[in-house]
Amino acid sequence: MHVLDYRRLVLLTEGSLGLFTSKTAASIIRYRRNDVVAVLDSECAGKSLERLLGFGEGIPIIAEIAEAMPDHPDALVIGIAPSGGQLPDRMRRHVIDALRAGLAVISGLHYRLRDDDELNEIARDHGAPIYDVRDPGVTTRLSFGRARSMRVKRVLTVGTDCAVGKMVTCLELRTAAVRAGLDAAFVPTGQTGIMIEGWGTSIDAVVSDFAGGAAEALVERVADRGICFVEGQGSIEHPAYSAVSLALLHGVCPDAIIMCHRPGRTHHNDRPDCPIARIEEQILLNESLTRPLHPGKVVGVSLNTAGMPDEEATAHVADIARRTGLPVSDPIRTGVAPLLAAVRSYLGI
Amino acid sequence: MHVLDYRRLVLLTEGSLGLFTSKTAASIIRYRRNDVVAVLDSECAGKSLERLLGFGEGIPIIAEIAEAMPDHPDALVIGIAPSGGQLPDRMRRHVIDALRAGLAVISGLHYRLRDDDELNEIARDHGAPIYDVRDPGVTTRLSFGRARSMRVKRVLTVGTDCAVGKMVTCLELRTAAVRAGLDAAFVPTGQTGIMIEGWGTSIDAVVSDFAGGAAEALVERVADRGICFVEGQGSIEHPAYSAVSLALLHGVCPDAIIMCHRPGRTHHNDRPDCPIARIEEQILLNESLTRPLHPGKVVGVSLNTAGMPDEEATAHVADIARRTGLPVSDPIRTGVAPLLAAVRSYLGI
Repeated sequence: MHVLDYRRLVLLTEGSLGLFTSKTAASIIRYRRNDVVAVLDSECAGKSLERLLGFGEGIPIIAEIAEAMPDHPDALVIGIAPSGGQLPDRMRRHVIDALRAGLAVISGLHYRLRDDDELNEIARDHGAPIYDVRDPGVTTRLSFGRARSMRVKRVLTVGTDCAVGKMVTCLELRTAAVRAGLDAAFVPTGQTGIMIEGWGTSIDAVVSDFAGGAAEALVERVADRGICFVEGQGSIEHPAYSAVSLALLHGVCPDAIIMCHRPGRTHHNDRPDCPIARIEEQILLNESLTRPLHPGKVVGVSLNTAGMPDEEATAHVADIARRTGLPVSDPIRTGVAPLLAAVRSYLGI
Repeated sequence: MHVLDYRRLVLLTEGSLGLFTSKTAASIIRYRRNDVVAVLDSECAGKSLERLLGFGEGIPIIAEIAEAMPDHPDALVIGIAPSGGQLPDRMRRHVIDALRAGLAVISGLHYRLRDDDELNEIARDHGAPIYDVRDPGVTTRLSFGRARSMRVKRVLTVGTDCAVGKMVTCLELRTAAVRAGLDAAFVPTGQTGIMIEGWGTSIDAVVSDFAGGAAEALVERVADRGICFVEGQGSIEHPAYSAVSLALLHGVCPDAIIMCHRPGRTHHNDRPDCPIARIEEQILLNESLTRPLHPGKVVGVSLNTAGMPDEEATAHVADIARRTGLPVSDPIRTGVAPLLAAVRSYLGI
């Protein structure tokens, strides 16, 4: 079975339900709405998912996997993407319950559930498969800019921080591009993208010498398409994830870049000791780092204004547009039309 | 036994002997001269090592491991650091000969000799240990700029390319600093440094999400020293190795940076399709990437002029000094005094 063959999903967020802390669950709800049976989070059980996330109407929040069984779920998905990728203790009992009920467990953690003796034994005893989608397998390719000579036009999202909307921006751009008649592909580079699209490689799980090569190999898989939107990771200035961001920049050799930004966020991922550089500087830095290999131009800004009042969001859009001189849009609030137009205009397609 | 306990080394360079292609062997000869019994390279057997490298007088180049046996070697060291880190086919027979003779085999390749069924079986049968020093083990620490608050002053070498002298510059700076009475440490971040110093982590072999954290952990080991010189890797603009370079920049949080450069080299590692950005741009880029986490300043340039006539080398030093406005020196040709002075002056120590 392939991960996309599971279409009766329970999303495990135990103690982490919210837009950013459970971004994997949030994105699966957004992009695979019809495959979601329930969200499993005893701290929010019985509450309205729509009120918590702003979407997901009608999906129940349950406290125990047993409550979902009448709806015949076929898989439990670990719905969080925590820093460091370990399995929180509070989630273990739910994973065990799911395996004992014969459900597949799909995980995007760095921690490999398949290597966990206890979970592995229970899975075997109950014929329940475990999918560690973040496991990149063995990959030993080095990136030497081969993507430059591939026919496909390459658009990469980059960000001023984690969890600012790089994947969502790509997915929305892909959908809009296909609607506009372009031969457009989405290239997943992280666990959530892989769960949504069914292929890809978590670049952050690849040995650092080969991370750029793994990104290059992903682009190669869509080399004959018209245009691809490659999901970025982290930020070029984030102390923990910058290596992954740069591997993507040099492995993908983007023609056009969309900068993703959460206005008002002044420090990385709520770390008060790690300030975020100004977006103007980050745009220049990303562009500088693509030279001299293959100059990539930032052609638009994707703003994540989730949860803000309309007035505040509009003010942020105007502010960032003024400061960067670029088209700015929030893909969820107002759509990606201005960003797709900027990409098409710059690439001449 | 520890890798440094082996003091009768045969360095295997089979078909790769030269300053850059066999840089691991070259550096072991330079820094562990008294531990080297022979160089094993059938293509250069009988030639003068000193004539080939410019140093290593008196060390024989042999064609078969058997020739070294009268000198009682205790280990064979894989003396190359090839792109991608695989074991060249031409070297396999020598590795097998060494294991059959009961010698330890010390490797810094990405390819794990311990995971090679044939080699592993021969090693076991002959009681010959295998050391894969590039294996970083399991490391899951994220870097969040903790190095900033460590007492030790941190100096990082960065480069405009691979194989330009980042490790040599650090080792020479450490020696000079100790001579000057400073409490100075060298921090090895790659296979050759580990073989010379006996500890460290090959950052390029760490999973990309944790590469910065692994660098931070290395600095932590010398946190109570006065000053440390951290060996850089690759180049911030090298398409294959930039992720590793950036992981070091953000994991180490250097106070001062030494830029290492090979004048006249216009393309990365002799790849005619990957041009090198100008050194002035690379200095700015490295400095920009350390902001806002912890501003690191490039305070000097280490020039690698190996093999050039004195006049040419002197002209390059003058040219780079003029272009960068920084102290410039070739650590091997003229010593690191100007670079150490620049570091001390900038750090006020």
